[in-house]
Amino acid sequence: MTTELGVITPQTLHIESPLLLSSGLILPRYDLTYETYGQLNASASNGILICHALSGDHHVAGLDANNKPGWWNEYIGPGKPIDTNQFFVVCSNNLGGCHGSTGPATLNPDTGKVYGPDFPIVTCRDWVNSQNELRKHLGIDQWAALIGGSMGGMQVLQWAIDYPDKLKHAIVIAAAPKLSAQNIAFNEVARRAIMTDPDFHEGRFLEHNTIPKQGLAQARMLGHLTYLSDDMMGAKFGRERRKEELQYNYEVEFQVESYLRYQGEKFATTQNFDANTYLLMTKALDYFDPASEFEHDLSKTLALATAKFFVVAFTTDWRFSPARSHEIVKALLDNDADVSYAEIGSEHGHDAFLLPNDHYEGVFRAYMQRVICDMPSQDTKLSTAPKAEK
Amino acid sequence: MTTELGVITPQTLHIESPLLLSSGLILPRYDLTYETYGQLNASASNGILICHALSGDHHVAGLDANNKPGWWNEYIGPGKPIDTNQFFVVCSNNLGGCHGSTGPATLNPDTGKVYGPDFPIVTCRDWVNSQNELRKHLGIDQWAALIGGSMGGMQVLQWAIDYPDKLKHAIVIAAAPKLSAQNIAFNEVARRAIMTDPDFHEGRFLEHNTIPKQGLAQARMLGHLTYLSDDMMGAKFGRERRKEELQYNYEVEFQVESYLRYQGEKFATTQNFDANTYLLMTKALDYFDPASEFEHDLSKTLALATAKFFVVAFTTDWRFSPARSHEIVKALLDNDADVSYAEIGSEHGHDAFLLPNDHYEGVFRAYMQRVICDMPSQDTKLSTAPKAEK
Repeated sequence: MTTELGVITPQTLHIESPLLLSSGLILPRYDLTYETYGQLNASASNGILICHALSGDHHVAGLDANNKPGWWNEYIGPGKPIDTNQFFVVCSNNLGGCHGSTGPATLNPDTGKVYGPDFPIVTCRDWVNSQNELRKHLGIDQWAALIGGSMGGMQVLQWAIDYPDKLKHAIVIAAAPKLSAQNIAFNEVARRAIMTDPDFHEGRFLEHNTIPKQGLAQARMLGHLTYLSDDMMGAKFGRERRKEELQYNYEVEFQVESYLRYQGEKFATTQNFDANTYLLMTKALDYFDPASEFEHDLSKTLALATAKFFVVAFTTDWRFSPARSHEIVKALLDNDADVSYAEIGSEHGHDAFLLPNDHYEGVFRAYMQRVICDMPSQDTKLSTAPKAEK
Repeated sequence: MTTELGVITPQTLHIESPLLLSSGLILPRYDLTYETYGQLNASASNGILICHALSGDHHVAGLDANNKPGWWNEYIGPGKPIDTNQFFVVCSNNLGGCHGSTGPATLNPDTGKVYGPDFPIVTCRDWVNSQNELRKHLGIDQWAALIGGSMGGMQVLQWAIDYPDKLKHAIVIAAAPKLSAQNIAFNEVARRAIMTDPDFHEGRFLEHNTIPKQGLAQARMLGHLTYLSDDMMGAKFGRERRKEELQYNYEVEFQVESYLRYQGEKFATTQNFDANTYLLMTKALDYFDPASEFEHDLSKTLALATAKFFVVAFTTDWRFSPARSHEIVKALLDNDADVSYAEIGSEHGHDAFLLPNDHYEGVFRAYMQRVICDMPSQDTKLSTAPKAEK
């Protein structure tokens, strides 16, 4: 039996109902691009939504048209921890993204030009509200589980708070209940790099037929740096030089410099990530703070949640350290919620949530068995067409 | 009795003997700008050299012509931990700096233009060699102590290795025996910010009557971020907003953003720090790795040192964490060296080495008493003129 999904064709949902954003602005209509893997069962009880992180997209598993595997292909597929023989897995590109869903780089139907900086800033809550439209379209009353790492984990938390009856399990990986001042500061430095690039043109770079490549590369270098642990960088690069002799110039002297430049360059050019999307996603991260509506009391906030929780953190993650996951777990325990927690030993820093790891895979697989057991019927008959909700 | 030094006038030493740099290049002549505090005693046994950090300069204590206190004025002066009633304290602007000593922003006598990018990259060893010329000029055979924090601590280590008989005590604060891959990576991101600024003009910005202000501000924001601890930023700024209502735009939303922008702006404009100097100093940091000449064995390297050591680290410093100081202390203990070590509780991260702290001040003051006791004669007669060494 194959364990691979093969080539997946993305779909696009045109949503015509206006979305009231956290900012107070209204988006009259928008598209969500998404992929699905596996089949929805007859009772529509096996749906799983994967929420992506800052630089992610809807292509989470299988191969795309260019045979590129999804960003979490190791974990999703037939027989994999998120088993597509059991689950109907969905992943959408976030609103404001740059991979199909409506965002700064798409045409504004009102003007016939790309939105650029006119695209409104959206929040985690706005994402969840838009994903809820996709849920209705797919005919899923309640997700068997919502799963997300990093910024994706924040969307899962927001779902659990805003739509408690629409998910059975919330799997929150390498996340935090809000950004720290340091987290915000790193985002701000990244944004400044983009916004001070002369090719940024106040966000109207596409109209100028250019992109703020240097700024975007800078932002990515810095982001990447915060995803890796000091130990891992030490183990991977140490002080290894590009050339045996020191050059005493400003070219790349150490391998780690070369690696970071490459990552920045790749992101800004071949991955074609939209600079306005990068700005918008970092802002959504900064704004995420669900407890701010509940007297800054996370326990009160999570009292609204009825899902069962699985929280995962990685020992060397210094962007969202295990202490940040502890905050979530403690707030859930204050509510006597059903919560499992795994602290995974890894040298890979924040990036660990995307990488193979036996302990991680083991606990993940075990928890997903629990999700299966919690599915209301052992209905193995798969539906052929989703029943759309009105 | 006053505890303040008053206004200090900097001096400049013109050095005409060529300096062979680590890069193999030769600097035929150069200036070192320095300040002194207190008086040299008759036996010239009470000299202390303070080595400055990345963005520091020679103005370490007292007031300058604009009444600005030195960057470590809290610790140096009459009756202060580094007591100018006892010691003759010296601090010079590093070669390649931008506050008087010869560097990228000074005129190249061979061309009549500023050096700019033609100024050679110097290393920690080059700094120590140039400071040794100053030592000779001042008529000091052996420093009572060398003291430095961060990059300054690295210069102290290099002195102890290269000129073991020229110092009695080595005080190494918040330093590391070499940069980690992560440290280098942060420096590289900062350098890229400067070098990709269109106003950089490949380092010839002064000839273009401009400065790479945005790049320099970016670099400083990032540097500053690594000097502060997450906890301290949390305590100081938290998620405090500039305006009560969220703005949902790319203006400053949180206080921490405002603070960082201000720090970057200030550094790039009012402090007038030269961008080429910033590049050069970060490179010197990257290159610092004295053990690389001793089979990467720090114990073998420090076997050359004969000074007594005082090593200080700060609990929340994540740029050069206590673990990095432990490496130094362990290597010294491998040699049964005379070493004291203090791990100071502080929430201020790397910046702690510059800030008031009772524990820090207490152990510092106590150690300096030991430096006094170790001065060869209890000669309290102060010399009026230094005896220059040939």
